[in-house]
Amino acid sequence: MPAPTPSKAFPPVIENEAARGRIILVCEHASNHLPEPWGYLGLTDDQRRTHIAWDLGALGLAQALSKLLDAALIHAPVSRLIYDCNRAPDMAGAMPQRSEIHDIPGNAAISVAERLARTKAVYLPFHNGVHGLIARRIAHGLQPVVVTIHSFTPLYFGKPRTVEFGVIHDADPAYAMAIHRAAQATTRLVCDLNAPYTAADDVTHTLRVVATPYGLPNAMLEIRNDLIASPEAEQAMAEILAPVLNMGLLEIQRQAKAG
Amino acid sequence: MPAPTPSKAFPPVIENEAARGRIILVCEHASNHLPEPWGYLGLTDDQRRTHIAWDLGALGLAQALSKLLDAALIHAPVSRLIYDCNRAPDMAGAMPQRSEIHDIPGNAAISVAERLARTKAVYLPFHNGVHGLIARRIAHGLQPVVVTIHSFTPLYFGKPRTVEFGVIHDADPAYAMAIHRAAQATTRLVCDLNAPYTAADDVTHTLRVVATPYGLPNAMLEIRNDLIASPEAEQAMAEILAPVLNMGLLEIQRQAKAG
Repeated sequence: MPAPTPSKAFPPVIENEAARGRIILVCEHASNHLPEPWGYLGLTDDQRRTHIAWDLGALGLAQALSKLLDAALIHAPVSRLIYDCNRAPDMAGAMPQRSEIHDIPGNAAISVAERLARTKAVYLPFHNGVHGLIARRIAHGLQPVVVTIHSFTPLYFGKPRTVEFGVIHDADPAYAMAIHRAAQATTRLVCDLNAPYTAADDVTHTLRVVATPYGLPNAMLEIRNDLIASPEAEQAMAEILAPVLNMGLLEIQRQAKAG
Repeated sequence: MPAPTPSKAFPPVIENEAARGRIILVCEHASNHLPEPWGYLGLTDDQRRTHIAWDLGALGLAQALSKLLDAALIHAPVSRLIYDCNRAPDMAGAMPQRSEIHDIPGNAAISVAERLARTKAVYLPFHNGVHGLIARRIAHGLQPVVVTIHSFTPLYFGKPRTVEFGVIHDADPAYAMAIHRAAQATTRLVCDLNAPYTAADDVTHTLRVVATPYGLPNAMLEIRNDLIASPEAEQAMAEILAPVLNMGLLEIQRQAKAG
């Protein structure tokens, strides 16, 4: 298959940019859109609807949280199977050949030119967008806090996952630990720190690129997707998690004052 | 003074983009250009020529190194007194009110709107440019190494500095230490690690934003500006430092293989 050369870029979507809250919500896997010139990459329509193409429910949850927290939200407009914006351009997962039990035919033999074309069309516009949103709010004196919103499949390689809400940290664990404590104290969610993945699995790329260099508090949230499988469920989960994120923020603000 | 609102952006200049070498040279303080709408910020023409506006000799040295190493080079097109691209938008040094013994009248009372305007006009185009250059080379499989090129004044607050060549590291010291050892072993330069500044002085912003998140080897070089005060001296210094940078690169490649 010759490498398609996209003529256009796919910049991220920003919602509620004028929000007053400190939290910036980032959703790298918001969309299962598989646009031209790539198209379906050899997948069926059924496969395109599964968790391999996107994080089911993540965007709806993030949009509901954006309203409840008055938080800016930025999300990628194409499927992670074209380019996974939470991966650097040299990582295998950036344009995966296989996802869980599914081969991705259109990613089986990606040339250097094609890797470069997708990096320019999807990854760079996304990170320039996130970087710009954050830098503008830093310049405004708004002290941003970065929260990435993900969902995971309840059944992975045939094995059920019992955790419902995972909070993952990278180099600075303060906010993730505060969120975890608040969730355990105030919700009935089966909550775990660094589950179902950890930063060692290279899942915190966005946090490393846009939060750590500026010393911004940050965390990655993972919600089991059967708990956010309808607009009503997304809204209900947002109503559980919004106070948890605020309690966590209050705790790190107290720590900052005490320290 | 009302905040000027620039209608245009000032993207960085990229030279030798198709270079084959692993090293990417970054020069944040290459220029003493003070363009409209800001102009001279109340400084005299003599002040504009001093180290407060730019790193004297750094661009010439970087350009000579770019040729000797076959390295891509990216540099900022305006003075650090408009925006210091090696500082985050909320740092006082990003738009300094004072530099060494000089007041900067045009930076005495910067509004939030003005801080935001300069961030959008200078900082974001610069970092989008550096980020793009690096991500494209990562996608190409070129394993970039990031080296920032700076110069410092021999007399600071009236006190002479004896160090001639400083090598500064951030979180990953491997390449800086290898460069320091190579310089001590093979040159007559008075060389020191983390001099005349250290990362604790917040001078490694660029490395933190573009090198550390991708795990790229990196170092910040500081050359005393009286040693690169003419095109001939810049070329001579480049001929001393190019082999030092290559020896350092060989050493970390050996370490990577052994590790």
